[in-house]
Amino acid sequence: MTVVPDRVTTAPVTRDEIFGAHRGGKLATGLTAPLSDARELAIAYTPGVADVSRAIAADAALADRYTWAGRLVAVVSDGTAVLGLGDIGPRAALPVMEGKSALFKAFGGLDSIPIVLDTTDVDEIVETLVRLRPSFGAVNLEDVSAPRCFELERRLVEALDCPVMHDDQHGTAIVLLAALRGACEVQGREPGELRVVVSGAGAAGVACARILLAAGVSDVVVLDSRGVLVPGRDGVTGEKAALAHRTNPRGVTGSLADALPGADVFVGLSGARLPEELLATMAPDGMVFALSNPDPEVHPDVAARHAAIVATGRSDFPNQINNVLAFPGVFRGALDAGARRITEEMKLAAAEAILDVARDDLAADRIVPSPFDPRVAPAVSAAVAAVSEPGDDAG
Amino acid sequence: MTVVPDRVTTAPVTRDEIFGAHRGGKLATGLTAPLSDARELAIAYTPGVADVSRAIAADAALADRYTWAGRLVAVVSDGTAVLGLGDIGPRAALPVMEGKSALFKAFGGLDSIPIVLDTTDVDEIVETLVRLRPSFGAVNLEDVSAPRCFELERRLVEALDCPVMHDDQHGTAIVLLAALRGACEVQGREPGELRVVVSGAGAAGVACARILLAAGVSDVVVLDSRGVLVPGRDGVTGEKAALAHRTNPRGVTGSLADALPGADVFVGLSGARLPEELLATMAPDGMVFALSNPDPEVHPDVAARHAAIVATGRSDFPNQINNVLAFPGVFRGALDAGARRITEEMKLAAAEAILDVARDDLAADRIVPSPFDPRVAPAVSAAVAAVSEPGDDAG
Repeated sequence: MTVVPDRVTTAPVTRDEIFGAHRGGKLATGLTAPLSDARELAIAYTPGVADVSRAIAADAALADRYTWAGRLVAVVSDGTAVLGLGDIGPRAALPVMEGKSALFKAFGGLDSIPIVLDTTDVDEIVETLVRLRPSFGAVNLEDVSAPRCFELERRLVEALDCPVMHDDQHGTAIVLLAALRGACEVQGREPGELRVVVSGAGAAGVACARILLAAGVSDVVVLDSRGVLVPGRDGVTGEKAALAHRTNPRGVTGSLADALPGADVFVGLSGARLPEELLATMAPDGMVFALSNPDPEVHPDVAARHAAIVATGRSDFPNQINNVLAFPGVFRGALDAGARRITEEMKLAAAEAILDVARDDLAADRIVPSPFDPRVAPAVSAAVAAVSEPGDDAG
Repeated sequence: MTVVPDRVTTAPVTRDEIFGAHRGGKLATGLTAPLSDARELAIAYTPGVADVSRAIAADAALADRYTWAGRLVAVVSDGTAVLGLGDIGPRAALPVMEGKSALFKAFGGLDSIPIVLDTTDVDEIVETLVRLRPSFGAVNLEDVSAPRCFELERRLVEALDCPVMHDDQHGTAIVLLAALRGACEVQGREPGELRVVVSGAGAAGVACARILLAAGVSDVVVLDSRGVLVPGRDGVTGEKAALAHRTNPRGVTGSLADALPGADVFVGLSGARLPEELLATMAPDGMVFALSNPDPEVHPDVAARHAAIVATGRSDFPNQINNVLAFPGVFRGALDAGARRITEEMKLAAAEAILDVARDDLAADRIVPSPFDPRVAPAVSAAVAAVSEPGDDAG
């Protein structure tokens, strides 16, 4: 039996409860207006709908106004990197994507449908979404394995005239940045003065390193399973090579044992265990973000012996780095503004908005708001919309 | 201003009312359970959902039980033959597909999403739906132009292990057969003794001719825009050629003026006007099904001067031949039974079920039930499920 500790109620979640809640799925479609008599049918379907179709045929931009597509987020996955489960395929990934679609509705007020694809070929995924483009208004890529996810996202952004974001990358990065800045404010430090070690160069690790650089953190050292990313090192290609050139200003080489001594911040996104003796080599007043789920790189109680601020991805410890703080508001803001792209500026604005909400009550164990703080999504949405560039022909 | 006459209330439907009802679209997604605290999130999303994903990874058939896909109908169109509007493209077709999805929910209790495709290439549509297959449980093809629709449906039935039906063909055919049999019962005649003329060899015309043959009507003459389908005639290829070989037992050649004299039944599915003087040449006690929308081949008041029974596709006249009598129950029955195919037997059972409901109150102006008769969809669903062949590995 899976027992999930819970911070809000202490009743453990049982397997029966989980499977019971999933029976028949977690999503449903509904009608926005009744269809219970001939008059309602004549308005919503034939013959009335023909007027709407004719109007859109004459001006395609009206599709955003008179269909649900303009505000519909497709949650797209090929099932190659699902939670901690790995490449379990599209069918097994679907419950996760349904959950994600449910979160879009519950937190962002956006309609959303899961699209799980029976192909892992990047060309075919791009081609498929281009063909489906008139059916939705934005794409949330989810649980696509690295390094394919980088190429896939880049190509979708080029191919589709609508917001596209791989949440495992950028959702995580946005919330990490908000949390790191919150932690800095608690400690009276500046992000730019920190030495940061990012353990993991998958989707989330790469995106987190990038957003830290964009936010003015200059001393970032990134490691993959073979050690510090250094230009020319074996296995340092593609995104890793690009990162290797922009990070590691002190030219560290070797393993975590070489990178961590004296570091102010550890960001764990690899699942690799962080031994306590290494943790002990960090600088005083350090920050540990042990974000792997469900098993953090180091137990938060152990981390707290050596670090001043500890965050995880788990709901049963303080400082939960949960993507749900970011993605509903990011997509809502982008769609509200008619944006065609999700830019770096929008991501930074989202992090700032999350931090703004946290500021009301900032403390070492409250560096980010609760995922259920109702102020977060509207604040993120407004901040993202404010820096959005509406599309040329958006309605 | 579009004014739609209405049989139930006399208030005309205005353009403002139509566009107002379409603002933001006609569909929404919803959650089947709340996501308002950490415990609910731990059940529906991480970490609880991982148990469900693992179970499906071990046994793919469980996806039908623990996701919405097993009961989700994709309403798929490329926008090439929309209502009476023709090839208006996927964006302009979307309001119609949303309406169709809404009907699946309102009449069949099935969740449904519209998928409009930015390609009209049959190979590409098949390929796309094969890739999307894990996302849904059935495909309702809609508003795809003939003759492509015949090949597309056939290839999708081969490629997908789930129910696929082109509703413009088979939904229309099922309801026509139910109505024709109802009309026969009113008149005390047998379908097998009727001489039937089908005007139109598009999607609906071909399917109607086929289901009539399957139901034992042997004297069927089918015409396209160039006249009676005869083997070897110019333009008689593909589905038309196949029909030409199975129909027209008396070897009629020429136009409607050659085919209609002495006919008992006229089925109009082409939009081509039926002149009153031709109508007058039909046999006594004739039946006229003038099914083109919004403009029937002949006005029902004119038809009534020469025929004993008159039906149209319109809601503002008696005997409305409306697909909504068939498709919600057909898909619901197929999915309830875990069927992998929609067979001819299931279509005939659906027609029989519609007729059964009509029998309670059969009359010359009540040969089919009202589209809003709540008995119809459950009756059709039960009848279809009863003759379904469950799939080998259906759950």
